[in-house]
Amino acid sequence: MDFQDSDCRCRLIGYRRRSYWSPQACGCSPRSSRAQDNMAKPRHLRGLGICIAAALASFLFGFILGWFIKPLKETTTSAGYHQNMQWKLLSEMKAENIRSFLRSFTEFPHLAGTEQNLLLAKKIQTQWKKFGLDSANLVHYDVLLSYPNETNANYVSIVDEHGVEIFKTSYFEPPPDGYENVTNIVPPYNAFSAHGMPEGELVYVNYARTEDFFKLEREMNITCTGKIVIARYGKIFRGNKVKNAMLAGAIGIILYSDPADYFAPEVQPYPKGWNLPGAAAQRGNVLNLNGAGDPLTPGYPAKEYTFRLHVEEGVGIPNIPVHPIGYNDAEILLRNLGGAAPPDKSWKGTLNVSYNIGPGFTGSGYSRKVRMHVNNINKITRIYNVIGTIRGSIEPDRYVILGGHRDSWVFGGIDPTTGTAVLQEIAQSFGKLMNRGWRPRRTIIFANWDAEEFGLLGSTEWAEENAKILQERSVAYINSDSSIEGNYTLRVDCTPLLYQLVYKVAREISSPDDGFESKSLYESWLEKDPSPENKDYPKTDKYSSYPVYHTIYEMFELVENFYDPTFKRQLSVAQFRGALVYELADSVIIPFNIQDYAKALKTYAANIFSLSKKHEQQLRNYRVSFDSLFSAVTNFSKAASDFHGRLTQVDLTDPIAVRIMNDQLMLLERAFIDPLGLPGRQFYRHIIFAPSSHNKYAGESFPGIYDAMFDIENRADPHLAWAEVKKHISIATFTIQAAAGTLTDGL
Amino acid sequence: MDFQDSDCRCRLIGYRRRSYWSPQACGCSPRSSRAQDNMAKPRHLRGLGICIAAALASFLFGFILGWFIKPLKETTTSAGYHQNMQWKLLSEMKAENIRSFLRSFTEFPHLAGTEQNLLLAKKIQTQWKKFGLDSANLVHYDVLLSYPNETNANYVSIVDEHGVEIFKTSYFEPPPDGYENVTNIVPPYNAFSAHGMPEGELVYVNYARTEDFFKLEREMNITCTGKIVIARYGKIFRGNKVKNAMLAGAIGIILYSDPADYFAPEVQPYPKGWNLPGAAAQRGNVLNLNGAGDPLTPGYPAKEYTFRLHVEEGVGIPNIPVHPIGYNDAEILLRNLGGAAPPDKSWKGTLNVSYNIGPGFTGSGYSRKVRMHVNNINKITRIYNVIGTIRGSIEPDRYVILGGHRDSWVFGGIDPTTGTAVLQEIAQSFGKLMNRGWRPRRTIIFANWDAEEFGLLGSTEWAEENAKILQERSVAYINSDSSIEGNYTLRVDCTPLLYQLVYKVAREISSPDDGFESKSLYESWLEKDPSPENKDYPKTDKYSSYPVYHTIYEMFELVENFYDPTFKRQLSVAQFRGALVYELADSVIIPFNIQDYAKALKTYAANIFSLSKKHEQQLRNYRVSFDSLFSAVTNFSKAASDFHGRLTQVDLTDPIAVRIMNDQLMLLERAFIDPLGLPGRQFYRHIIFAPSSHNKYAGESFPGIYDAMFDIENRADPHLAWAEVKKHISIATFTIQAAAGTLTDGL
Repeated sequence: MDFQDSDCRCRLIGYRRRSYWSPQACGCSPRSSRAQDNMAKPRHLRGLGICIAAALASFLFGFILGWFIKPLKETTTSAGYHQNMQWKLLSEMKAENIRSFLRSFTEFPHLAGTEQNLLLAKKIQTQWKKFGLDSANLVHYDVLLSYPNETNANYVSIVDEHGVEIFKTSYFEPPPDGYENVTNIVPPYNAFSAHGMPEGELVYVNYARTEDFFKLEREMNITCTGKIVIARYGKIFRGNKVKNAMLAGAIGIILYSDPADYFAPEVQPYPKGWNLPGAAAQRGNVLNLNGAGDPLTPGYPAKEYTFRLHVEEGVGIPNIPVHPIGYNDAEILLRNLGGAAPPDKSWKGTLNVSYNIGPGFTGSGYSRKVRMHVNNINKITRIYNVIGTIRGSIEPDRYVILGGHRDSWVFGGIDPTTGTAVLQEIAQSFGKLMNRGWRPRRTIIFANWDAEEFGLLGSTEWAEENAKILQERSVAYINSDSSIEGNYTLRVDCTPLLYQLVYKVAREISSPDDGFESKSLYESWLEKDPSPENKDYPKTDKYSSYPVYHTIYEMFELVENFYDPTFKRQLSVAQFRGALVYELADSVIIPFNIQDYAKALKTYAANIFSLSKKHEQQLRNYRVSFDSLFSAVTNFSKAASDFHGRLTQVDLTDPIAVRIMNDQLMLLERAFIDPLGLPGRQFYRHIIFAPSSHNKYAGESFPGIYDAMFDIENRADPHLAWAEVKKHISIATFTIQAAAGTLTDGL
Repeated sequence: MDFQDSDCRCRLIGYRRRSYWSPQACGCSPRSSRAQDNMAKPRHLRGLGICIAAALASFLFGFILGWFIKPLKETTTSAGYHQNMQWKLLSEMKAENIRSFLRSFTEFPHLAGTEQNLLLAKKIQTQWKKFGLDSANLVHYDVLLSYPNETNANYVSIVDEHGVEIFKTSYFEPPPDGYENVTNIVPPYNAFSAHGMPEGELVYVNYARTEDFFKLEREMNITCTGKIVIARYGKIFRGNKVKNAMLAGAIGIILYSDPADYFAPEVQPYPKGWNLPGAAAQRGNVLNLNGAGDPLTPGYPAKEYTFRLHVEEGVGIPNIPVHPIGYNDAEILLRNLGGAAPPDKSWKGTLNVSYNIGPGFTGSGYSRKVRMHVNNINKITRIYNVIGTIRGSIEPDRYVILGGHRDSWVFGGIDPTTGTAVLQEIAQSFGKLMNRGWRPRRTIIFANWDAEEFGLLGSTEWAEENAKILQERSVAYINSDSSIEGNYTLRVDCTPLLYQLVYKVAREISSPDDGFESKSLYESWLEKDPSPENKDYPKTDKYSSYPVYHTIYEMFELVENFYDPTFKRQLSVAQFRGALVYELADSVIIPFNIQDYAKALKTYAANIFSLSKKHEQQLRNYRVSFDSLFSAVTNFSKAASDFHGRLTQVDLTDPIAVRIMNDQLMLLERAFIDPLGLPGRQFYRHIIFAPSSHNKYAGESFPGIYDAMFDIENRADPHLAWAEVKKHISIATFTIQAAAGTLTDGL
């Protein structure tokens, strides 16, 4: 994954789900036993309801037969049958199968746009057909991809006063034993970097976050204009680092992995341990797409007939060169940096260097410069999604989607193939149920995306192509990217609608953790993460990754030797994702809990309000009030509670009554979408959630209000700035009010 | 009406319907007997379907009772019952009732934002409750309105060389006999005109159309910069005239009604006939809202909590003064215009003047100037819609909406009250059906809009407030503005989906026309307008109105004495609109015909392609092809035909199967909406239909492509211009393809 999965797909598909094994738990955490029991349960046993006083035995027999003969078909969807089939589904899943899929799918590199990745697509398609899915098709798009120039390698050098390159960073990562002869390994690069050969003084900019540049420019009076900056990977999405560097005037940016962020104490580098070797460098795209998908066809699918922008107009493509390096090379670049000392210890990594800021080198090297060579080539390239379906028996026009990507930077040992393998085992298990005559109430769509690493391109193009259908028919999207990023406990990110279902499903699955034999996943998760309100998690953990992420060393053996030798964790994730899909696709009432959304809105409103409190004087001066927002949240809570009341009363034998409630459940998330979009980000249209403008990996609640208030004390025109805040409070108020309206049963 | 009804409401509500008595037929015209019979008919008689061979009589009796006892309720929705109740509904409607409503509702002026108009809202609300609707509520918004300054009248003057005003246009229209003491008559003005007192030379600009200014600027080398222009009303929406004048650099614009356009030969002026008196002037707003509704809250409802733009930022508000005058005053202004002669006879009206262009006067008056005094006041004002409902029995979450406005410039004798009265009689008749225990399958919403004359404000704000619900649940919108604008035959404008229903309903209603006793409305309509392909209609007729439109003389007696003395025409319109609502709300299958949409798309594609043919060389040079568009239309036709096939096969006793088809029918029109909107008009988002950029009263098909090609031969950068054409062909292709996708039963 590119850690972007959490973003725009919810815009088009409706909902997102992430779940995988994480070093530490965060996101949606289990809470002690909760109101799950309030949830309406499928009931199919019809009350007799009609009393016939005087009756012959044969009359009664005939009556009862006549009465029940129609609903007979429905017994195959009764609650007991439903529960039993779920148990069968989960029992079908085997750790050994997941291991085989992972082994088979990581044999070669599968870079998007390559022949090898097309062959893997066809293999997956063939397997899906064999499993018994109703359909399995390749769906292609022609999107802009970016590759290194094969005859003109990328590197960074130190240039002496005569223009001689006295140091060059490495061109590639040393392959591990046994992989020396593998071809088609793309060297480390940052996809969609501008090409060019900038030369200049070096400035160290820490993580290149907004706050890092504020520190440099506002407190230390250090300008990056005309400089090459070097930033360490971590904390935020690399695309945001590049954007920040561009805004600061840099002419190039070098990204490196500092051991402080990618080397755990007392663990060996791969292959002896799971730490990052010094010669490894993290690949990754540096786009700022903001949900546009293919940079040349924003808003529309990249089909043969589609109008394309010129590459210079492409969405989110940086206009400065970017290149990633390992910490061995970084140490040499950083070693003799001069200029100011790092402002505090948060600016220091763990290399044996001063972490001076620069610009430029000190001592005898003071006249040396840094030069970047980036020769990437942008190319419109055909990519392939695999789309499979199991047609729903009762509501074929309602879609539950399970999707994950296939393309990887090299072998994709964890990312994405622990997810691809899990999806494959889920598909196989559903196929086995089908072979027994089972069919879900709703349609299940399996999706295997291409070119995720290049900016979620395969999924976004598909969602763009099918936007109308998905808006009308999609119930939920469950993502199946990497199943592990550590081995501590479960991590789940999802819409509040799904909290209760997540807990329910976690209770029904066995824990794979040592010491939790015979306990549920819910119990081990709860014990390992007892404090969902632990506010430190997002800051300390949420946006890092496992050390060898996006390097050549991310391979099958990494998983087998270190992360999940028994494949039991991946099995748990498969059962967890599979059970979510099953419940969403086969429950009579869609298992969403709207009251949890109301609670979440209350929390988000309180958070954004408390953020405003540090400007109390301005709130008064400019008459900024959050009262209307709180009123709307209260109205939403009331509507949610009323809806819940009606839901518990609904006649489950009345198909239209059930459908009406399900339609409201299905469409609620859409009600938070504002067609006008967020300022400057027209493809992010959800008013409650969006990726942070400063870090695509992080989510922001009430992003419109948040961005309007961000750094507001430094705006040129505070009157205008606070008017913008008021505008976004008004938009949020309206949107929540409108969403509440969709929960009522009339106008 | 403001003739704007045909525009953006389809954006938010889904579909529009206009129908009224017109001087000549146009729009959707009856064709000889067509494939209406292909339409699936509601069938409720269930086949027995299960055969029990050996059975005791009592067993059989019990079985049959058991089988049928559940569907028993459905017999009240059987086809026969449905047909019978429609007949009852139409029989309830009486010309005399419509006359009474019209009489009662036109007693006083009902300008939006006034006490009198609120009182009328309450009266209508009370009546709806009395009729037996399930609910009737006032819904308010606080929108920007514009009124004349009561202490500082608007007028236009001629100023001599000493600055003395030697001629002033009249301040008001002489009230007709019997109306001398009526208060609260707003004098003629153009709502939302800028205030100011510009002075300058006069230029006559014909209808102030785009082509008129092209003629002046490109062929005659006459500039309007710094001038006051005078334009005759007619042909296009007055807001477009003002926008064109602003673009041409004018500092003010005077609008007048030329007898050529507002005075029919051999007819007396009102009150002796229905012609325009010389002292009458047409009121009307001059906004260019492009669907925004309230100018200060584009995209959001104008509620108490809503953020508002400053008036200077308001959407579509002109920045030059505008004022309307009658032809008596206009003749004086035009009489001594000098400069060039009119370029051809299409520039000449029928006043006794030369129609010289100017600038400025000739002869002894050469040093005279024209001065405008416009002192209008913009004011945020509370407006009130009345919203009533009849809850659907089976699908309460599906809405068929019948709406029309209540506010009028003065008495609203035709506009809108012939529509309001008709809506009232329809509501009353539905109420009578309710009193007999009837209830429609779907919910019917009655809407009585406020502030339509100020830019469709009441309806747009309501649609904005309820956009999410309407997107999910609305089936169709039938408009009930003015029921007559002439007395020749029926005029209908609607989505192609409704053509078949329109013909069916017209066949079931009696014609009110003399000489067509005992014939159907369809037959008289067909006979009077035998040529639907008559291409001249739109040009010669479509955009004019009845002469006294928007003047004080538009009053009850105008209708009673001239347009519809028997009220039989309005009765026909009531029956027609009522039957449409009935069929849409109560048919098991929504009576839309998708194949007619396919045919229409084919025609539109051929039209836009033929428009491109005059640039054949450029099409080749810039590689512009319409092939993909034609392919998409072909795919849509295929999908429509397949859908139609499935529709005829659907099991009408399977509620979910029926709902699935109905959902596809209901949602098809939404599939043509592009969330990105049209260039520069983000609230016009339908790719197939939009108001013309040059005339809000006219519709344009494929507006994106049309606008991209408009006047393309005069663009500075033809390469860029043709790229824009290609982009819009691509968007249209995608949209039609996507719409076709929604007609399939899977991905």
